[in-house]
Order: sequence, then structure tokens, then C-alpha cells
Amino acid sequence: MTAPLIGGILDQIIEAGRRLLSQQSSPAAPGAGLDALCARVLAQRGEATALAAASELAARLERLTPAEETKFFRTLATRFGADREKILAAAEAYRREDSPAHLHQLGEAVEAPRQELLRRLNMAPGGTRAIVSLRERLLGRLAEDPALRAVDADFQHLLGSWFNRGFLYLERIDWNSPASLLEKIKRYESVHEIANWSDLRRRLAPDRRCFAFFHPALKDEPLIFIEVALGRELASSIQPIIDPDASALDPATATHAIFFSINNSLNGLRGISFGNFLIKQVVVELQRELPQLKTFATLSPIPSLRGWLGPALADAAGLDLDPAERQALSALQQKPSVDATDLAPLRDSLTGLCARYLGGVLGGPRPADPVARFHLGNGARLERINWLGDVSPKGLQQSFGMLVNYYYDLDNLELNHEAFAEAGKVALSKELARLIAAKPRPKARPNDRTPAIVTGS
Amino acid sequence: MTAPLIGGILDQIIEAGRRLLSQQSSPAAPGAGLDALCARVLAQRGEATALAAASELAARLERLTPAEETKFFRTLATRFGADREKILAAAEAYRREDSPAHLHQLGEAVEAPRQELLRRLNMAPGGTRAIVSLRERLLGRLAEDPALRAVDADFQHLLGSWFNRGFLYLERIDWNSPASLLEKIKRYESVHEIANWSDLRRRLAPDRRCFAFFHPALKDEPLIFIEVALGRELASSIQPIIDPDASALDPATATHAIFFSINNSLNGLRGISFGNFLIKQVVVELQRELPQLKTFATLSPIPSLRGWLGPALADAAGLDLDPAERQALSALQQKPSVDATDLAPLRDSLTGLCARYLGGVLGGPRPADPVARFHLGNGARLERINWLGDVSPKGLQQSFGMLVNYYYDLDNLELNHEAFAEAGKVALSKELARLIAAKPRPKARPNDRTPAIVTGS
Amino acid sequence: MTAPLIGGILDQIIEAGRRLLSQQSSPAAPGAGLDALCARVLAQRGEATALAAASELAARLERLTPAEETKFFRTLATRFGADREKILAAAEAYRREDSPAHLHQLGEAVEAPRQELLRRLNMAPGGTRAIVSLRERLLGRLAEDPALRAVDADFQHLLGSWFNRGFLYLERIDWNSPASLLEKIKRYESVHEIANWSDLRRRLAPDRRCFAFFHPALKDEPLIFIEVALGRELASSIQPIIDPDASALDPATATHAIFFSINNSLNGLRGISFGNFLIKQVVVELQRELPQLKTFATLSPIPSLRGWLGPALADAAGLDLDPAERQALSALQQKPSVDATDLAPLRDSLTGLCARYLGGVLGGPRPADPVARFHLGNGARLERINWLGDVSPKGLQQSFGMLVNYYYDLDNLELNHEAFAEAGKVALSKELARLIAAKPRPKARPNDRTPAIVTGS
Amino acid sequence: MTAPLIGGILDQIIEAGRRLLSQQSSPAAPGAGLDALCARVLAQRGEATALAAASELAARLERLTPAEETKFFRTLATRFGADREKILAAAEAYRREDSPAHLHQLGEAVEAPRQELLRRLNMAPGGTRAIVSLRERLLGRLAEDPALRAVDADFQHLLGSWFNRGFLYLERIDWNSPASLLEKIKRYESVHEIANWSDLRRRLAPDRRCFAFFHPALKDEPLIFIEVALGRELASSIQPIIDPDASALDPATATHAIFFSINNSLNGLRGISFGNFLIKQVVVELQRELPQLKTFATLSPIPSLRGWLGPALADAAGLDLDPAERQALSALQQKPSVDATDLAPLRDSLTGLCARYLGGVLGGPRPADPVARFHLGNGARLERINWLGDVSPKGLQQSFGMLVNYYYDLDNLELNHEAFAEAGKVALSKELARLIAAKPRPKARPNDRTPAIVTGS
Repeated sequence: MTAPLIGGILDQIIEAGRRLLSQQSSPAAPGAGLDALCARVLAQRGEATALAAASELAARLERLTPAEETKFFRTLATRFGADREKILAAAEAYRREDSPAHLHQLGEAVEAPRQELLRRLNMAPGGTRAIVSLRERLLGRLAEDPALRAVDADFQHLLGSWFNRGFLYLERIDWNSPASLLEKIKRYESVHEIANWSDLRRRLAPDRRCFAFFHPALKDEPLIFIEVALGRELASSIQPIIDPDASALDPATATHAIFFSINNSLNGLRGISFGNFLIKQVVVELQRELPQLKTFATLSPIPSLRGWLGPALADAAGLDLDPAERQALSALQQKPSVDATDLAPLRDSLTGLCARYLGGVLGGPRPADPVARFHLGNGARLERINWLGDVSPKGLQQSFGMLVNYYYDLDNLELNHEAFAEAGKVALSKELARLIAAKPRPKARPNDRTPAIVTGS
Repeated sequence: MTAPLIGGILDQIIEAGRRLLSQQSSPAAPGAGLDALCARVLAQRGEATALAAASELAARLERLTPAEETKFFRTLATRFGADREKILAAAEAYRREDSPAHLHQLGEAVEAPRQELLRRLNMAPGGTRAIVSLRERLLGRLAEDPALRAVDADFQHLLGSWFNRGFLYLERIDWNSPASLLEKIKRYESVHEIANWSDLRRRLAPDRRCFAFFHPALKDEPLIFIEVALGRELASSIQPIIDPDASALDPATATHAIFFSINNSLNGLRGISFGNFLIKQVVVELQRELPQLKTFATLSPIPSLRGWLGPALADAAGLDLDPAERQALSALQQKPSVDATDLAPLRDSLTGLCARYLGGVLGGPRPADPVARFHLGNGARLERINWLGDVSPKGLQQSFGMLVNYYYDLDNLELNHEAFAEAGKVALSKELARLIAAKPRPKARPNDRTPAIVTGS
Repeated sequence: MTAPLIGGILDQIIEAGRRLLSQQSSPAAPGAGLDALCARVLAQRGEATALAAASELAARLERLTPAEETKFFRTLATRFGADREKILAAAEAYRREDSPAHLHQLGEAVEAPRQELLRRLNMAPGGTRAIVSLRERLLGRLAEDPALRAVDADFQHLLGSWFNRGFLYLERIDWNSPASLLEKIKRYESVHEIANWSDLRRRLAPDRRCFAFFHPALKDEPLIFIEVALGRELASSIQPIIDPDASALDPATATHAIFFSINNSLNGLRGISFGNFLIKQVVVELQRELPQLKTFATLSPIPSLRGWLGPALADAAGLDLDPAERQALSALQQKPSVDATDLAPLRDSLTGLCARYLGGVLGGPRPADPVARFHLGNGARLERINWLGDVSPKGLQQSFGMLVNYYYDLDNLELNHEAFAEAGKVALSKELARLIAAKPRPKARPNDRTPAIVTGS
Repeated sequence: MTAPLIGGILDQIIEAGRRLLSQQSSPAAPGAGLDALCARVLAQRGEATALAAASELAARLERLTPAEETKFFRTLATRFGADREKILAAAEAYRREDSPAHLHQLGEAVEAPRQELLRRLNMAPGGTRAIVSLRERLLGRLAEDPALRAVDADFQHLLGSWFNRGFLYLERIDWNSPASLLEKIKRYESVHEIANWSDLRRRLAPDRRCFAFFHPALKDEPLIFIEVALGRELASSIQPIIDPDASALDPATATHAIFFSINNSLNGLRGISFGNFLIKQVVVELQRELPQLKTFATLSPIPSLRGWLGPALADAAGLDLDPAERQALSALQQKPSVDATDLAPLRDSLTGLCARYLGGVLGGPRPADPVARFHLGNGARLERINWLGDVSPKGLQQSFGMLVNYYYDLDNLELNHEAFAEAGKVALSKELARLIAAKPRPKARPNDRTPAIVTGS
């Protein structure tokens, strides 16, 4: 988060800092390890030298070899982690005498020095970007090296405070937006691919809306973006919406706003919550422009469905299926690719399972599906399951072609949100509540959830 | 730091939160204590209820009676301070087993819950402003109630992270600026008072410049502002500069930019460093507009001089004065008001003392004068002492009418800054170095400073 | 209307043009007459030399002595007027042969060369401003020198095409507007004087609105501005509205928007119509911000009333007054200053006369009062006469303290406007219609007007 | 040039005008001829009805059948042309008595009523666009119907005054510009076609610059745009410049700015001069951004060369060629397509002819080539002829593959411009001056030009 300083002055200061650094008695040799450079960043008391060192570090971090990267993350975990001896000594001092000074020392000892290192890196030009990129690579290593989890906790803590909701701003994106930005939308769209500029243009036609959230420190990055189709009914299928040759509707006649694609652009910000307001802002913005809109809902994928079903089928009792059904599902699950013909006989089984999975009856204490968790966390209601809603290979692959609508009813959003946040209760439409009730609940097991609430009409 | 949310949505959410709060089983009665309200702010897990509670807290804090205020700060110090028992338990657990989880718990225990309380307050509309205003009142109580120092440390920590230099932006202020902003400049100017709009207009005439720094969370507040007079020599006296009837110079013929007034507007941000770049930015901005400018320097007060001299005169050896000089100074010091006639005979004594005081030979390990500390910390050089530079009652009162020039030489700024930050060395002009050298140094005493460096020409 | 050229390039070109001009065989000597300079402006074919000459002309015109000014206007009237011989020859050629070329030549001959001169002057930096200022001075000479009317017709023609409504834009002015602009509002306000900055600030308080129209060629000049008071009734008196110490109303509770001052800033644009949309735009803008507003009306002066009454009283039959009334009015009319006591006995007479004067029964074929003409031409309705509405010396002087409300009813505005534009019909409230009807119409005389229409409720 | 009125108010007024129109005694039936509608536009005195009628006219003009269009232009020529009888009567009145009133009447009679019709049309939303589009179609008919030339003269006169240079503003276009605007650049580029978005992106890469001029009344139309390649030498060939796969140069190392494509977007504005400043502005803008640039020159086509050569070859004496040369050229001229092999033997002949054609020795009194006329009129110097500069089919076709550089030397621009504007003198580089001098001038003939001046080095 570098200052919006008058052009060039930052460079001037960094240059001066660089000269001063090079005069220091024992400069780290240019080829010296990253460890030494990190230590220097932390050691500087002058602003110019600190910036110069941080700035060099940012540049070095961009071209690490895999081996260097491994070593760097290990160093963050160990050398720049908290110092156990110091903590224990501070704790002992505080135990003996309850003084503010002792408490303060304990607080300082507990914080890993890598936090200060990252804060200083964040002040250099390009620092924020470098940190987000570092974290992306760090996330890829957590599985193999659990000791890095503590490092990631510090990244997450700092990124969470820098990218808090208070700094995000919403902008509408359309065909008048900068081409450089549209190019990013094209590249980052991962829910329903944008193949080329004609495809992109259709997504920004008069009966579409696209909104993105930005942060001042990464001005040209649409952190999250949301694509909306205006229409006259609750959409049940994605293919007509993304068809580049579909004719456009007059927006003045639209009654429904369908959020059909929501993308987080930067992997390095995974898990950083931008708050629950984002979609609400889009709803309010759409209402302002088109007051005649009555329904706001998503047409969403269920990315985790198939991944969950495999192991779940192995647990005989869990899904409460009759043996034939279970066998047919297992067979389907094992096919490398499926088509509409394969799916047809299992329609009832699959929609029922999907409803119970998303509705919180099956699976862990809260829905494991990240999309469901996002919308239910926002206070949306699980509205409808759409059979053959996405017949693309990807759609068939991840959720047997099913899509789901989440319904945004502003009047109940806060209530639902609080019920879900406090007690894990899922808001359901009457239709889905009925579908779930049709199947007796599995015998009570430790992880089972509280009954879902119904707010739909 | 409330979100730049689309108008009205925040209010909508807060209203919904308020309704939900009022349904909670044991709501704090409207008249209930602030304690209960603070506890509620911390207890909410839903975003809407947390915001609604924080928002009510912000409103309540604005109209505290003095008694309530006293009680509130005490509560912050005790009930929302760190929990000693919890800390000791967490420390013991960590001592027994060195696990990340134990370390994390210790970290959480050490942080006083009032930090989270302030963070949540900061998210409510008007929250930042409320916190800055709270701190102003808190600072006024530190002397009488030292236990509040720990509370203030938390305020300072959070304000420091929110108001870091990366978010400040510079804007030029002139006669085309909004009247509402100019009115604030008029009100906040505390170095050389602005009496009325004509006075103000002269300060913004074509041969004056005014720059202010702003922060996104307090958009209409000029946090710091700097007034500059363009001229053709190193100014030695303030009265001609602020004379509303002085004729204006053609800026194209100016060679010197004199910074004659620098104001921090908000007392609640006292001690929060905005970094050392601010004046440098102004210098760069001026160079861009008027490339012919050659000299950038201040014409600054020495607000602490007289306050320091009183006690210092009591210490016979300290100032190294002959008895008659010392006696005359003591007599002067005790006069309720002084004029040029009183001062004339003591010119040499006073300028010598002033030079040694600011130059770091007398007084503590770093100059006690806040203005000196600011400019020397920026890397400026102590250039010249101006006898009868400010003959206003205030100028005569605080520094016997003397003003001082600090010289901003971009080529040496970083070097000076680092030397001062690392080793407390003061950069001096040749003239001042000579003046200081003329007087033998006092015998070495524990607090004495390292010799000053000379960078001037 | 100089180009928004990249800074400095215009100056560069003019400088080049100046060098070229100075090389021309017989340059006008620096002291040469304006005639020669005007001729040069017209003679140049190159863009640079034309600009350089026009630019010199603009500068010269700013510092004319009265004698030079007289001479300059005479020159415009004669030397740069149309050439009778040329016109007659072209007309004869066209008479003989009806060809496009002959028609074109006739068209060219008929246009006075001063038009091209003004067009070229208009392209120089500051040219538009110079022309507007010239016209102001020209208007002051029309009475004494009727031959200048043809010159003014050309000024009016060109200014009318440059300042057409299509280029004006509306901006709201408030306490956040630039101080330099507010200073102009303070200076240009001529209906109800603004004495100082406190006075000005009250005019821009939350229960006031001010809107101005600007033109791209004179960006810093508010060509017209309108001051509005928000209130809860149809205002009948100006003094409470402009009282700097009056407390402010919460705008959310206002039901009435009262336009209490409308100013044309530049005398040089007198008679240039900016269209009938201006007030309508303000009404629409206010409705958007404060949808609860129900009534839009003015509180307006009747600047011509007393000036009209004097001569009118001399015509015995015209006003249809009984002799005593007439005598009392004549006495009143002759007093150098009047007060409320003088006026009280004549209240019925004066309000009746005023109603008939503005309502179109007395006076010429259309109301002679310029304010009435403006609002009736906009389609407003004459609503109410307010006795003692303005008790300032100026108010008592020009209209015996009376003010009048014109009512803007968007639904009838266009109808009223067309009726007034096409047939001179004045829209009246029922109350005023009754007041006018109470007095038998004067015997029909040539200039009498068609009966007024009534649209009020 | 519709007003930037607050959204919707114009529509409201037009709607009101429409209602009033429909109440007029003898409304033109909806199907009534355009003649009647035009007459109505001219007849309205109220602003609302005039706008409503103009607005209907604008809509009707957009969907004319070819037959209606023919009829409409004829009507403009006759019914809305000047009235001969009225002109003659006014001329006679003026002849008898030299009064301002008579002169004014004559002026009014001479102006064709279609001018007022177009002015009123111009005030309706979309009116400017409709007029520009009308003129495009009108230009296509001038050849077949010379009587329309007088109509076009009026279009040109009005468009010239609306689109004068004073209103144009320059904007840089790059990859951050709105996609909708880039799409237009892609479409309007007619000098060197842009095939697709990758092609377009290369044209906007860091070593390219693109600038466009806009007008407030057609905000989204780049009226003229200029593409610039930054390089390190005077470019001699277009293919490397527009190669989408060429690697990009670091702009900081560029010394030459080559203007390689200049497009006028709207045919309806053909012949409307935007002044001579446009390229100069671009030069100044480039100098500001990249002060190290030393050379500004074009790489330009010679679109008229081959079209001129055909007839010219027929005139034995004119070109001063030996018979074999002439025969070879005639053979070449008749080939439907040519390639480098065909051209090689004629290199000297063709470059010589080209130099003499552009240099003003051959052809009419001023260069017939429109590109030459534009740059020479700007004050550029004819610098170099590039053999095989454009080997695309189009380049080979129109100018035997030759391209030419015009050199923009700011120091001589105004001098050259004036010399060309006043006396038709062409500025030549030494190289081209030598090339032209090598061939004895043709015997003096009436149209021959004055000798060219040489300003090159």
C-alpha cells in the first residue's frame, strides 16, 4: 500500500536510500541470501533505507527459483517466527509483576517478526502485489508443509486488515470500460469461460450488468466481479445466458436480475472476507437503475457436489438410499464423462441428494459447498434446483449438470444471515423444504445439523 | 473507516441490525450503561447487529457527560483491558508445549479486548471521527490518571495503522478551494492566526502556496497543512509575510519558497507519525510548478524555548553563562511581557543559547523543541536564527521574538535524516556551527549529545 | 471561444504569428490606429498571423481611452459596416441572372465585415471576454448614438449564436464551492445585496439552494444564478429569508421552494436569451433531491412599477381611478422616500394597480416589467401580491414595498408559455383574476391586451 | 447540439410540446409529407413545440427511403431556398432608401430558410448527428444533381461554425480507453486496416501513441485520430510498423515520432476545416511526455498519384518524359495489379514524377493530393520519397508502393504554413529540391506554380 505520492518522489527517496545502504559498514553482498536482505529490511531505522531495502526485497521475491522459494518460506517460519525464549522470559516477568511495561513486552514477544517484515514490504512500490502473489504460492505449499500454516496465519491476518471491507469500492463495468480492464475480466472469468471479444461483448450487452470491487492499493485489479443477466423469469439454464448470439432484451422490460457468475480474481486473497455487503450493494445499485426489478437471484454451480458424493456413497448408512439407487449412483460416479442420457434415470435421486446436501441435512455441520456457504452467509435463500441447468462438460462433471438458484430477498437477508452465522440455519424455499422433508432424516449422528428454517413463500 | 457503500445501504443494514438487536432475549435497556453496550458490540457475530450496536455506541459517545466520560475510560482500562488470569494460563500452556495453537492463544490473551471494540466502532458511520475525538479527550486525562496510558497505547497503535502514510494524499489549497475547507484552514491555523477572510485571501494570493494532506476516512479534514511564501530571499521576519495588505510578487520571479506555517489540525492524532515525506512532496510539487525555485526553507517558531530556559537557568553550571548574563536573563524571564527594548541588550546571549539549544549542545539527548525535531527528523538543516523575526506578543512570549530557518536541501535530506534518526546528529549551517563552537561545550554530562555534523555551505 | 488547447501551444503559435506579422512589408506601426489593426486582423490568411493580430486587438481593446472607444465604435459602424455600392451591384447582378453564385455574392455583400472581425477576435485568448465587455460599453452609448444600433445588432446576433442554450450547463453552488466563485456570487447579487461572508454563508445554509448556469467559453463566470429558500409556506416577505441570523430549517421537512433572487451577471449579454429551460431545470433538480417538495414559486420584485406609475398617473382616463385616489397616489409618487405609514391608506389602490399592471390590463401589449416578462415567458402563473413584502429602502422605492409570487406548475408550464409566447395571454391565480375583474376594464384602446387566461386553483 | 440538460427534462419538454402540437388546429397528419413537417418546425414560436417538431423531424430523417430522400433534398433546394421575389423587393427598397431596417430585411431575404430549419433541427436530441449523416448522403448526390450545391453550401457553412476549432479537444487513446471507443478506432481506420483486437492492441502498445479529437456535441465520436509510432529513425516502410508481432521498443529510447495514419472519421464533415493546430498539439503533447524526441514526421500515402498519372500521361508535353519512359509508364499504368518486379525498372521515373507532382511542379496550382495539401497546409516540409514503402495491394495500387515523409519542424511550421497559405509555396528538403531540380521545368504554362522554397537541412 504505497502512498499516492507525487510521481517520482518515491523513486527519488528509494534511490537515496540505496546510496545510503551501500555505505553501511557491512552491506549484504548483492548475491547474499534473502535472509540477510530480510534482516536488513527489519534493521533499518531511517525511512529511506527501509524503503530501499524493502523495495529490493520485493524485486527479488518476484524471480525466486523454486528452491529459493522453499528456503524463503522456511526462513519466515523459523528465523522470523516468534522467539520462544523471549516469550517465556517476558511471560515470567509479567507473572512476577503485573505492570503495563511487562504486558507490553509480552505482547511484542508474541508477535512473529515476519509481521513487521511484511508490513515494511507492503510500503514499497509493488509491495502489496508481491505479498498477494507470495501468499498464492504459500497456499500451494500448505498441504505438504504444515509448519507453514503459522506463516499463512500471519499473511491472512495482515491481508485481512489491509483489505477490509471499508476500503473496497464498487464500479460498474460495461462496454465503455477500459479495454485493459475488460481483458482481465475475460481472463479471470472462471465460472463460465469467456472465449473471445465477441463473447465478452455479449456479456456486457444492454441486458447484462457487470460489477466489480476494487481496492485502492491494487487499482487495476477487479478483486471480485459479478455478472448479471436481466430477464423475465427465474433462469433455470446457463447456456442461453452465455450464448453470444442471443438477442438482447430491453432492460426496461426486465423483472428478474440473475447473478450467473461471481469470481474472486486473486488466489492470493483466498479466505480474506470482504464482508457480506457486496451482493447487497449490487442489488441496491440495480434497484436504483431499474426500479421495476422484482426478483434478485443467482444461477449458481455446485462445484463440490461430485467430489463429496464419491466418499459419501462409501458410507452405507449415511445417505439413506436403497441399494439399487446407490449402485446406480456409484456406477455413474465412476464414469469418466456423463451425458444427459446417463443422468435421466437418476433425476430424482440426484436432485434429492443435492437438496439435502445443500440444505444442510447431509454433510458436515455447515454446507461444505463454498458457493452455498457464500450465498447462505450473505442471507440468501436456497430456492430451486435446476435439472440440466448446465450441460457443458464442466457442468456435467462437477454437479451432474445441476445448477441452483439462491434468492436474495432484501427484507429477509439480515435475518437469514444472522440465523446462519449464529446457528448455521439454512433458509429454504417451500419447494426445497418439501423435497428435503420427503426423505426421512438420517439417524441422528454427532455432526448433524439443526433443522433448517423456512422463509420462502 | 466506513465503506464507500452506495448511499443508504449502510443505513438500511444498520436499521435491520437494530431490529434484530431488539429481538435478542435480554436487550440492554435503552438507559443501560455504556458497559453493557460495549459488551454487546463485542458479542455480536452477525455483521448487521455488530454494526447497529457500534453505531449506537458512536452516537452515545458524542454526548457523554464528564462523569460518564471518566467512567467510560476507566472501563476501557479495566473491564476491556487484558485478562491477567487468561494470559498467565495461556503462557503456562505454551511453556509446557510449544505448539502454534498455544502460541496463538497467548497472542489473543495478550491483546486487550478494547482493541477489538475500537475496530468495530471504526466500522460504523462516523466511527473514525468518534475515535479521534475520544482520543483527544483521553490525552487530556493522562496526566491526572496514569493508568490510562495503556489505553492510550492501544488508541495510538490502531490510529497509527489506520492513518499510515500510505493513505495520505496531498492537495493544493487556493482561493478556488471550497469555502467550507478554507473556513477550516482559517480555524485550524494556530501558528500565525488568520483573523478574517481578507487575511485568508492574502495567504492564498498568487505568491503564496498552501498544501494539505488528507485521509480517505476523514475526507473533509486537512490533517496537516503547510503555508508557503514565495519570495526572493531567505525570509527573516514573519510580519511582512502575513501582512494582508502586502503587494503580491509575480511567482515567476521567485527564487525562494519559505514554509512559514505548518499545522496539525486534529489533537486526537497527536503523536501519530505521518512519515517524513510530507514536506518533501511539497518541495517536489513546487519544483515542478516553478522550476526556477532554488531555495526551500522554513521560517519557524521555537515554541519551547522560554519554557526550557526557566528551569535551565536554575542549574548554575549547565548553561555556562557568566553571572551578570545569567542574572539579566533571569530578570527577563520573569517579566510578564517583553518588548524589543528589553531584548536588545541580551541579543548575543539569547541567540547563542538558542543556537546551542536547537543545535543539540544544550538540553536532552535530542532537541526538546517539537518543531526542531520535526524538521531535523525530515533531514532539514538548522540554518539561521532571526533576531526579532516575530514581534507579535506570542512570538515575544515564547521565544523572545526569535524565529529560525530550517533549510531543505533535497540532495542531503536523506543523509541528514538518517544521521539524525540513527545517531541524533543535527545538520548545521556553517554560520550556526561557528556560533555554537564559539562557546566552549559544557563539561561532559551523561545526557550530552554527540557533536553535530555540518553539511551547510 | 478559444480552443482548449494544450497549455502553451496557443501562445507559441501567437508568438510565431507575431514574428511573421513584423516581417510583413508595411506593418502597422505599434502606435498605429485601431483601424489599421482591425484591417490587419481581417486581411490575414494564415492562422498564426490572424491569431496574433486578433490577440493584439483584444489587448488593445482592454485599455481604450473614452475618446478611442468612441472612435472605435464609429469605425465599426462605418468602415466595417456593409458596403452599399457593393450591395447594390450584387443585387443588380442577381436581378439580371438568377445564379447561385450571384446569390452567394449578394449574401456576402450584405453581411457587415465587422461580423468577421468579431469572429476572428473571438478566436483569440480572452476574445470572448473582450467582446462581452465591449458590448457592455456599446449598450451604454446606444441612447446617445442611434447609429450604433446596427453595430449592436451584429454583436447580439453573434453572441446569441455563441451563447445558445445548448452550451449552458447548470451547477449547484453551496458552501463547498470554490471561494473565488462565491466571491463573484457575493459581488453579482443585485436583487438583495449580500453584505459579507456571514451573510453569504446564510444564503448557502442547508435550507437554501443556489444554482448557476455556466458557458464553456467563460468557465469561471456564473452567467445566471438563482437563489432558493426552502420553507413550509408560500413566502410573502423577503426580510426573514435574507436575515443572516435566521435559524435553518431541516430541508427534509420543506414543502415549498421559493426562488427569491435571480441575477444575470454580465451586462454585456443583456438581451441574449438563454432559453426558457433554466428555471425548469432547477425545479427538476430540486424535485430529484427533495421529492416531497410540492410548491415551486418565486418571491419577486416589480422593478418597473414606480417608474411606470408616474407617467401613467398623468393620463387621466388610463388608470380608471377616482380623483381622490389619484391625487393621493400622485402625492405619494412625489415623495423622495416612503415608509409603511405613508403606504397604509393606499394599500387597496396600490395592490389593485399592481395586479392590473402585471396582469396585462394596464400598460402596453405585453407586461413592461422585465421580471414579469421573464417568468410569464417561462410559463409561470401570476399568483399573489404581497403587501410590505420588501421593506428595504430599495423595495419601498421601486414598488412601494410590494413583492409578487410567480408560481411554477410543471404541468401547465408549457401550455402557459405557448399561450404567452403566441398570444400574450397571462396566466393568473383565481385570487388575482378576481382582483383584476373587480375593476372594470378601461375603455378599449388600441394597445389593449386580450383577456388573461386563468389556470390557477 | 442539444443542451447538457439534467436527465429527462428535455424529454419532458418535448413530450409537452408534442401534446401542444397535437392540439393545433390543423396538425400535419402523421403520414403527412416531410415538407409539411419542415414547415411546422419553422412555424413554431414556442420552445417546446419547436423542439417537439424538430425532434420528430430528426427521427423521420433517419429512416427515409431513397425516393423520400431525393424528394427531401429537392425540397430543401427549392421550397426552403431563398425567395427570389422577396430578395428583389428588399434590394429595391434598400436601393431607394439606405436605412438599417432595409439592409436588415435584405439580409434576411438572402438567407435561405433551410438554414433556420437546420439550426432548429440541431437543437433537438440527436439533431447534430442527423445533420452530419444527412450531409454524408447529400455529398453522394452532388455529382448527379448540381442544384444541390447551394444546399450543401448551407450545410457546410453551419457545420463549419458549429465544429470550429475552438470546441475540439484532444484526448490520448490507449489500451486503457473504453472498449466501445477502441471498437470505433478499429472500424474507422481506413489508411492501414486494423484486422482484429490483437492488431488493435499492437497499435496501442507502449511504443505507439494514438490521439483523437472530439467535439462536445458528438462526444463518443473520434472526429480525427492520429496514430504514431515511436522509433529510432525516419521510418521508410509501413509494414514493420503495423506488424502485430513486432516487438515493442522502450519509449524512453525513442528519438523519432512517426505519424503513420491520420483518419477523418465522419464523411458528413468532409471539407470542414478543424484548423491547422491539430498535429501541432500532438507534437507538443509528445514533447511533453518524451522530451528526448527529436524528429516528428509522417509516413504518408499519396492516394491520388496513380489517378493523376493516367490522364497526365496522355498529355505529351506535360510530363517531360522521353518516349520510352512514357511508354513503359503507360504499360504499367494499365496493368490491373503490379508487383515489385514490375516496378523495379521504373524506380527513377516514378520517384522523379512523384517528387515533381507533390513538390508542385507538375499538376495544378496547388498539389492535388489531399494528404500533401493537409500536411503542407500545416506547415510541414516534404522530406523524402520511400520506394516500396507500402507493398500491400492497396499501396501498390494507389501509388506504386511509394510512401512519403512530411517533416514537422516546429521552428519553421508557421513560416511554411503562411508561405503555403499565402503563395502556395511548398517547403522541400534539400534532397527533394535536388531531385526536382534535376529535371528541367516544363515550359511555362498558365497554371504553373511559383518556385518552391527550401527550408530543409
